Amino acid sequence: MKHIAIAGSGLVGSLLALYLAKHHTKIDVFERRADMRLQTVDRGRSINLAMSYRGWRSLKEVGLEDAIRPIAIPMQGRMVHYLDGSTQLQPYSSEGECIYSVSRGDLNQILMSAADKIPNITTHFEQQCSHVNLKTGEITIKNTQTNDTTTQQYDLVFGADGAFSAVRASLQRTDRFNYSQNYIEHAYKELHIPPTEDGGWKMHKNALHIWPRKNFMLIALPNTDGSFTCTLFLAYKGDVSFEKLKTPTDVLQFWQQYFPDTIDLMPDLAHDFFANPTSSLVTVRCNPWVFDNKVALIGDAAHAIVPFYGQGMNAGFEDCHILNTIIDEYTEAGITEWDTVLQQYQHARIPDANAIADLALRNFVEMRDLVADPQFLFRKKVEKYLHEKHPEQYTPLYDMISFSYVRYSEALRIAQKQDEMFGKILAISDVEEKWNEGLLYHFVETLLHQYSEHFVVGSHQ
Amino acid sequence: MKHIAIAGSGLVGSLLALYLAKHHTKIDVFERRADMRLQTVDRGRSINLAMSYRGWRSLKEVGLEDAIRPIAIPMQGRMVHYLDGSTQLQPYSSEGECIYSVSRGDLNQILMSAADKIPNITTHFEQQCSHVNLKTGEITIKNTQTNDTTTQQYDLVFGADGAFSAVRASLQRTDRFNYSQNYIEHAYKELHIPPTEDGGWKMHKNALHIWPRKNFMLIALPNTDGSFTCTLFLAYKGDVSFEKLKTPTDVLQFWQQYFPDTIDLMPDLAHDFFANPTSSLVTVRCNPWVFDNKVALIGDAAHAIVPFYGQGMNAGFEDCHILNTIIDEYTEAGITEWDTVLQQYQHARIPDANAIADLALRNFVEMRDLVADPQFLFRKKVEKYLHEKHPEQYTPLYDMISFSYVRYSEALRIAQKQDEMFGKILAISDVEEKWNEGLLYHFVETLLHQYSEHFVVGSHQ
Repeated sequence: MKHIAIAGSGLVGSLLALYLAKHHTKIDVFERRADMRLQTVDRGRSINLAMSYRGWRSLKEVGLEDAIRPIAIPMQGRMVHYLDGSTQLQPYSSEGECIYSVSRGDLNQILMSAADKIPNITTHFEQQCSHVNLKTGEITIKNTQTNDTTTQQYDLVFGADGAFSAVRASLQRTDRFNYSQNYIEHAYKELHIPPTEDGGWKMHKNALHIWPRKNFMLIALPNTDGSFTCTLFLAYKGDVSFEKLKTPTDVLQFWQQYFPDTIDLMPDLAHDFFANPTSSLVTVRCNPWVFDNKVALIGDAAHAIVPFYGQGMNAGFEDCHILNTIIDEYTEAGITEWDTVLQQYQHARIPDANAIADLALRNFVEMRDLVADPQFLFRKKVEKYLHEKHPEQYTPLYDMISFSYVRYSEALRIAQKQDEMFGKILAISDVEEKWNEGLLYHFVETLLHQYSEHFVVGSHQ
Repeated sequence: MKHIAIAGSGLVGSLLALYLAKHHTKIDVFERRADMRLQTVDRGRSINLAMSYRGWRSLKEVGLEDAIRPIAIPMQGRMVHYLDGSTQLQPYSSEGECIYSVSRGDLNQILMSAADKIPNITTHFEQQCSHVNLKTGEITIKNTQTNDTTTQQYDLVFGADGAFSAVRASLQRTDRFNYSQNYIEHAYKELHIPPTEDGGWKMHKNALHIWPRKNFMLIALPNTDGSFTCTLFLAYKGDVSFEKLKTPTDVLQFWQQYFPDTIDLMPDLAHDFFANPTSSLVTVRCNPWVFDNKVALIGDAAHAIVPFYGQGMNAGFEDCHILNTIIDEYTEAGITEWDTVLQQYQHARIPDANAIADLALRNFVEMRDLVADPQFLFRKKVEKYLHEKHPEQYTPLYDMISFSYVRYSEALRIAQKQDEMFGKILAISDVEEKWNEGLLYHFVETLLHQYSEHFVVGSHQ
């Protein structure tokens, strides 16, 4: 019986407990906050989640897919809102695949309640795992109401305590711990579009709405109650930035100029803007994730990423899936080779975490700027053609990330080759005209043939 | 009167105190260690210092150049030791410029004693500035003998407390603090070549000795007592690595294979190898360096770099020089605009710190591998020609870094263009033969002319 502590009962901590409970373990989960199921949920700091393949796979494996489906709203594509008020739905997939808008709070509560039903999991609220003694394996548990601390010994401690992980802070003092935290120049602020009077949606329900404005953007995701959660992503400083928006008049003028079609939808805009925090966006990378068979990091604690690919939660859930797969592989007659498991886990996941961190940063430019760019849309058109005609040979990056289980690092490698190929296509003068006249099929097919060996998943591992 | 605390009385902390004392300040320096002047100096963990232009400029400005010159041993070039026992002196400069081997301990003691003579500087030993309260500006001072702590208020706190800075750790908890620590795969170990019986040097005194062995190397710098301080740089893990050297026999066999000409020079090799620590090599970057007009980082605390360009101390000393220049610029009638000074300081120095960090990493490959590479040596020959013929138009990178005050970031920018230019030269088949026959002068001169606008210092700022 392995005695395991998990720091954090957030999405990844709760899911991890459900996975680990299937093995020969006894699990204590320590959560610094109070039980969210007994509280009103914080608003103003949670970007909506977009669940895609990787997230669903994990929910299915722990038996919760059916519990989540009813609260997940399919989004077929990006609904791009242009400055002139016109809109355009850009489907995510040519095969009807969707990503799903899910409330972080609802999802977390379902995971926690599932954990409560399992005898070998105990969750302790208002108890923070504040420190790990790496020599003894003892953890310090702080009662966040009284600040009293106690210590306790575990065989293994998982840090699932988020981007500002206390468990990781303990590792950070060890020699040769590689670590970086990098903030982007932009901040985000959560805002709100309430439902219609009869509880319906004021905009198209089944889409992720984007107002791309080159260096900044507004997005909106649907909620089950008819509302939309909106998020403004805008630079902290500069000509058009949060620092320039000091009064309700500033905000309304800014909105009138850039998002005029939303003003009527957001009656509380000026109030919410100043009531809700302006929050920063960080990428955290580290290596190793595992210390001495005693401590391991998972989810945001190991790899916090910016939210622009909708993969933060999906990546954390995939960490749990991969870990579980490796445990299965290295367990015989109820005995798990934990040493090997943890080494294999970090070996498998660190390259993928770095890849999705890069892709998420890159997707910000795509969302806020490129989705309104004719060349980008032309490329999408050619990619759709290639994917439909040669589904085995060409899969667009978005599909690899959201609608497949291809390793993130493989998707990134292939995407770099796709970019190289499209560099050659887009260098042709009047390319779109020629394409529309059917003059380029042969050229593009030949190019695809030349590149096809690079587009094979796993071919360069 | 500005009341300033400096964390750390190492090289940069002590020098900084000397500079700041020239302005309207009262300075307390807190040093966690005991006064090194009353102790025997640690051995086994200090890579020798190579003082070059930037270091000397600062010493001159605080009036200590004459005190240091007598303990500085000029090194005219790299003495490359090939595997067959042959050696080759590669001069650092075609104009006879040298870098200087200086003992870290001796230099530090001279700086400390100079600070002791200045009434507005007080140094407190065994007192660590362990924390800065960023709201109040209060610092926590820990007596490192008793662990008792006291707090004290200062107008301004400088963190000159090295790569693992406690002052920086306080900043690291602030929002939007960008930070990274990255370790290379190699470790270092200090070793020793004692003097001859009559107190002379067993190898050429006025050189930096290198045994380049592709993925690893041994170096040796002369000391004033006739000894050499040697440092082995070798991977932690892998086929040829520290982990493979487990017994004195392993070490001697390794030495016999790769450094046979040094065995007789190092009578204590096997003992020293196991008595001295195996230490890691880290690059630390962060941004910002300044918090709220109250806290600033300097030296390794702001930018720890690997030692392969011999610029760690030189860069820290240049931080102090630049800061002092800015203070002069923004001081009128004894009143310093500290707010502006600190902002200008970080604005000026962060790009240069990042550049020298990159250059130091890159120079490891040069030292351990390229110095023994014919193509590299051919390039050096052409560079020497260009520099001698067109000193205004072409300066090799090493000269810009070590024998000029060109900004590191400018040197890096120019070096990238130099690399591009040499890519074109070295692409010519049988280039060395053609050069030696005098067939390429026109080609190279024309190329230089094409590139010359990129080689102007400050032209792209």
